[in-house]
Amino acid sequence: MIKVAIIGYGNLGRGVERSIKQNKDMELIGVFTRRAPETVQTEGAKAFTMDELKGKKGAIDVCILCGGSATDLPTQTPEWTRLFNTIDSFDTHAKIPEHFAKVDQAAKEGQTTSIISTGWDPGLFSLNRLYAQSILPVGETNTFWGKGVSQGHSDALRRIEGVIDAVQYTIPNNEVIDKLKAGEKLELTTRDKHFRECFVVLEEGTNAEKIRAEIVSMPNYFADYDTEVHFITQAELDKEHKAMPHGGTVLHTGTTHENTKQVIEYNLQLESNPEFTASVLVAYARACVRLAEEKQYGAYTVLDIPPKYLSPKSDEALRKELL
Amino acid sequence: MIKVAIIGYGNLGRGVERSIKQNKDMELIGVFTRRAPETVQTEGAKAFTMDELKGKKGAIDVCILCGGSATDLPTQTPEWTRLFNTIDSFDTHAKIPEHFAKVDQAAKEGQTTSIISTGWDPGLFSLNRLYAQSILPVGETNTFWGKGVSQGHSDALRRIEGVIDAVQYTIPNNEVIDKLKAGEKLELTTRDKHFRECFVVLEEGTNAEKIRAEIVSMPNYFADYDTEVHFITQAELDKEHKAMPHGGTVLHTGTTHENTKQVIEYNLQLESNPEFTASVLVAYARACVRLAEEKQYGAYTVLDIPPKYLSPKSDEALRKELL
Repeated sequence: MIKVAIIGYGNLGRGVERSIKQNKDMELIGVFTRRAPETVQTEGAKAFTMDELKGKKGAIDVCILCGGSATDLPTQTPEWTRLFNTIDSFDTHAKIPEHFAKVDQAAKEGQTTSIISTGWDPGLFSLNRLYAQSILPVGETNTFWGKGVSQGHSDALRRIEGVIDAVQYTIPNNEVIDKLKAGEKLELTTRDKHFRECFVVLEEGTNAEKIRAEIVSMPNYFADYDTEVHFITQAELDKEHKAMPHGGTVLHTGTTHENTKQVIEYNLQLESNPEFTASVLVAYARACVRLAEEKQYGAYTVLDIPPKYLSPKSDEALRKELL
Repeated sequence: MIKVAIIGYGNLGRGVERSIKQNKDMELIGVFTRRAPETVQTEGAKAFTMDELKGKKGAIDVCILCGGSATDLPTQTPEWTRLFNTIDSFDTHAKIPEHFAKVDQAAKEGQTTSIISTGWDPGLFSLNRLYAQSILPVGETNTFWGKGVSQGHSDALRRIEGVIDAVQYTIPNNEVIDKLKAGEKLELTTRDKHFRECFVVLEEGTNAEKIRAEIVSMPNYFADYDTEVHFITQAELDKEHKAMPHGGTVLHTGTTHENTKQVIEYNLQLESNPEFTASVLVAYARACVRLAEEKQYGAYTVLDIPPKYLSPKSDEALRKELL
């Protein structure tokens, strides 16, 4: 049995707890939290303080870090990798090289193994970009996200004065996807690829048109997109928009000779983004433990990991059943 | 530069020649053939006899074997793996364990590396079955093929007395695919998943209805499917049905908790099946050479290979650009 610890218990941590129950070769040792453990409502797992983690070195095969990329993981992953094998879902694309270097150093010093930036993007989408571009080097890759809730954009809406609550959906332009799949050559701008749809709850007396103007012109988040804004009540938001669906498509269109078109498409349709991301982390936790058993210490990403290491099955069974 | 030899020059071998031209880190040493080399019309590559291959041990980094799975590869792959690193597309699913064992032994004796059964199924589809099932263990995988030309089924038609020429298309049942993607639970028979469509040229005076009855009741090939048969002229067949499109879908529908649905879909839409398969072989040829450089001798499949080994780019570049 692979003994797993969950570090941080929000939506992702809860997803990991659920995923471990689906994997018969895994056992959850506990949830480690900065909160008072007795206040954490798990689905059966024991909760411990973060301080108690240090004393469990022999009892844990791998820690799955479920904190956020902004402030938690940049310090937590290197710190815990000195003592434990770790998995994280660090997803600030621009800072991955820096994060990788820090975790790699910690892992080599601690003789541990860490797989960083797992999940679906970065993660499964990265893998598909790599496979597609390696196989069809003459071609073009486009990634589309959605339809799904973007936490970053929803947070940006909630920071606006006068906004009580908000949810933002990223919506891919399916017309563009269909044209690309049909082999059309397109020069695509940011605005062409995705739409943004916002559901916003306002404080009473707030000027809705002023807020709408502020949203659609917000740099980085909305200014470069066609954005629709709907003002609704908190009750409507709670009823209709509190699920966390997401997904997306990696589309690679290549040519092998003259004008012979070849299309590779990878598509995710997720009813729960955190539960799916958690499932990816758990599969890579298995790979992480195997690498550590082989004394392959250091930091890795999904691009480095032999696919078979994700499965509990033997090489022979995989060749027989899946090849 | 990776120095590549092509063994056998049919549609697949020609596809490999074309693919190597798209990969700037590769150089084609030549085509090795059982035919008289001067009769082989390559697209620029030098043609040699098969006997000349033995003398080129130092001059070739990897041989891409482009023969058929029925009679060529079972003997050729073990034979040439004693001398060279090799790649093949052996696709007789039931005999892969046996083929693997023979090639593995040859590779270990010859201190070479071989990656067998590459291509898209087995190959990329196998990878996607593995990733999907490892990430969502509570779920179901279905593979659909087509729309595309099945060589095996076309050959079966051509063996019928009175048939001059024929092409068979495998057509996936898109209605079933859509239902699965929507989360429906279906008990699927062979007949539910694919249709078969045949275009057949008859000798003059042949009884078409008798041939139709023979086709639709042919065991293994057509009896378990809904099959449509069209009788056309050779001119029509040559004009409309001599391309070799193919493709298909690996669809995994899983649940992460209670009834939370997650769908993973991998989809290929190929205008040329042999050219695409060739492109996969060429990418794995790169991986094969790297494994051999690391002295990782033996037989491997796509399930064993770290994804980054397919790319000519450095680990750092891949993390920066693709993760």
